Amino acid sequence: MILGAIEAGGTKFVCAIGDEQGNIHERAVFPTTAPEETMAHVIDFFRPHRIEAIGIGSFGPVDLRPDSPTYGYITSTPKQAWAQFDFVGTMKQHFPVPIGFDTDVNAAALGELRWGAAQGLDSCLYMTVGTGIGVGAVVEGRLLHGMLHPEMGHMFVRRHPDDAFAGICPYHGDCLEGMASGPAIERRWGKKGAELADRHEVWELEAFYLAQAIANYILVLSPEKVITGGGVMKQTHVLPLVRRHVQELLNGYVQHETILEKIDEYIVLPGLGDNAGVAGALALAAAANE
Amino acid sequence: MILGAIEAGGTKFVCAIGDEQGNIHERAVFPTTAPEETMAHVIDFFRPHRIEAIGIGSFGPVDLRPDSPTYGYITSTPKQAWAQFDFVGTMKQHFPVPIGFDTDVNAAALGELRWGAAQGLDSCLYMTVGTGIGVGAVVEGRLLHGMLHPEMGHMFVRRHPDDAFAGICPYHGDCLEGMASGPAIERRWGKKGAELADRHEVWELEAFYLAQAIANYILVLSPEKVITGGGVMKQTHVLPLVRRHVQELLNGYVQHETILEKIDEYIVLPGLGDNAGVAGALALAAAANE
Repeated sequence: MILGAIEAGGTKFVCAIGDEQGNIHERAVFPTTAPEETMAHVIDFFRPHRIEAIGIGSFGPVDLRPDSPTYGYITSTPKQAWAQFDFVGTMKQHFPVPIGFDTDVNAAALGELRWGAAQGLDSCLYMTVGTGIGVGAVVEGRLLHGMLHPEMGHMFVRRHPDDAFAGICPYHGDCLEGMASGPAIERRWGKKGAELADRHEVWELEAFYLAQAIANYILVLSPEKVITGGGVMKQTHVLPLVRRHVQELLNGYVQHETILEKIDEYIVLPGLGDNAGVAGALALAAAANE
Repeated sequence: MILGAIEAGGTKFVCAIGDEQGNIHERAVFPTTAPEETMAHVIDFFRPHRIEAIGIGSFGPVDLRPDSPTYGYITSTPKQAWAQFDFVGTMKQHFPVPIGFDTDVNAAALGELRWGAAQGLDSCLYMTVGTGIGVGAVVEGRLLHGMLHPEMGHMFVRRHPDDAFAGICPYHGDCLEGMASGPAIERRWGKKGAELADRHEVWELEAFYLAQAIANYILVLSPEKVITGGGVMKQTHVLPLVRRHVQELLNGYVQHETILEKIDEYIVLPGLGDNAGVAGALALAAAANE
């Protein structure tokens, strides 16, 4: 089966031609500028191929309610040019094939479950820490949706007693995204995370916030694997700190061997690296064609 | 269909004979003492009836993994007499019929979805605030399970700046259950909640903690309805305070009419009152017999 995949992010679109086994035959990256421009690149990329279905994992907020008049739209995003953009409808005009549509983080969670770090499991959580903080989840083999799609990145967390930073979330100030996203790190310390690699206190604080949210996700969803990706997690010294804080917070309460004794195998980096999202979009395409 | 239902709580067992429409024909309550004694009452209650299936919603922790050697057990509960009690096995010895088994709060969530405040919806969250704080959830029509069952009552919450109370959770101190359960109220204020009805500051603080957890549940699960039951919620002046705090915390971020404008219909008391759990156990029985 020839499938098209789009991981639509706020800074770039990753497109791929691949198949239902997660193989990626061809891959291209386009910057996220105006919809007309970016979508023209996307359409040109797919046109030569006889694609049988398309999967889209998109930045949001997006409308995922199949019975909604704006199903398949990017809705009230602060990226003005993309607000109320009919993503699925635009693709359908050019490619009249089945189209699967979900959030970028849900696509990544699905990709990791099928072919990555959570392969063979029934559930996982995928958290990306970068420009924003987004989280997708698979529960009993199915992507987690609700009344709206989850917005776990905005979880309310406890402030560190030594941290006076106000937070940068325009809605909540010091929610998780407001305290621990890439731009929050830069605003608090006056430098980008990549330039702070050797400052232990930066990453201790980062882990303090990420671990609280992960502990709460575990208490709510009890996933079989927690996968952490995105630019901030490329500071690979963060993850061991996160694991330690999660264990300390839960304090033996969640009595499962993998948390008590094998946390290095429980909270992990993406098995698919930067291809989790686009691979997940292939899985969305395959599912749409079933 | 003649179905048996058990809502097994830490202080009492509610048993019922009913049917797959949620009708309760007969109901009895037994105190939770030693397993031999309590279970003898339960078995005597069901024996005269030709029950075709049994549903059990039990206090926990319980083992819900079908492939586990201790499936159907109450596991490491602090109620020593019940630790490692083979609940499903004991019932099966006396009644060789299909048995559905889940947590007490999951049963209540299912009962409310079928016949209560969330009737006709695909998802809901049921939170009980009493001796402990427990939460069950239905997601796309199915009860939420994970690697272990969720333990949302222990969510980490922000301490109120004027609250010096240490919290009573033996694992986490000041997690939600440690700060806002019935015993936490009693320990903090020196009186039971029922004797503090006219003390506004008690319920403002209670709502401050409950609302944080509910806001986080909304961010993670995006349920279509949030149902709050248990002894503490019988202080009916608490719920309006909780709703106001949830709206303030989310601050317009979750852009759904029901949260922005109809929160009185979104965060509600149980439609089935104290029968949510036992009605849900009937639904578990019906599902086990399918």
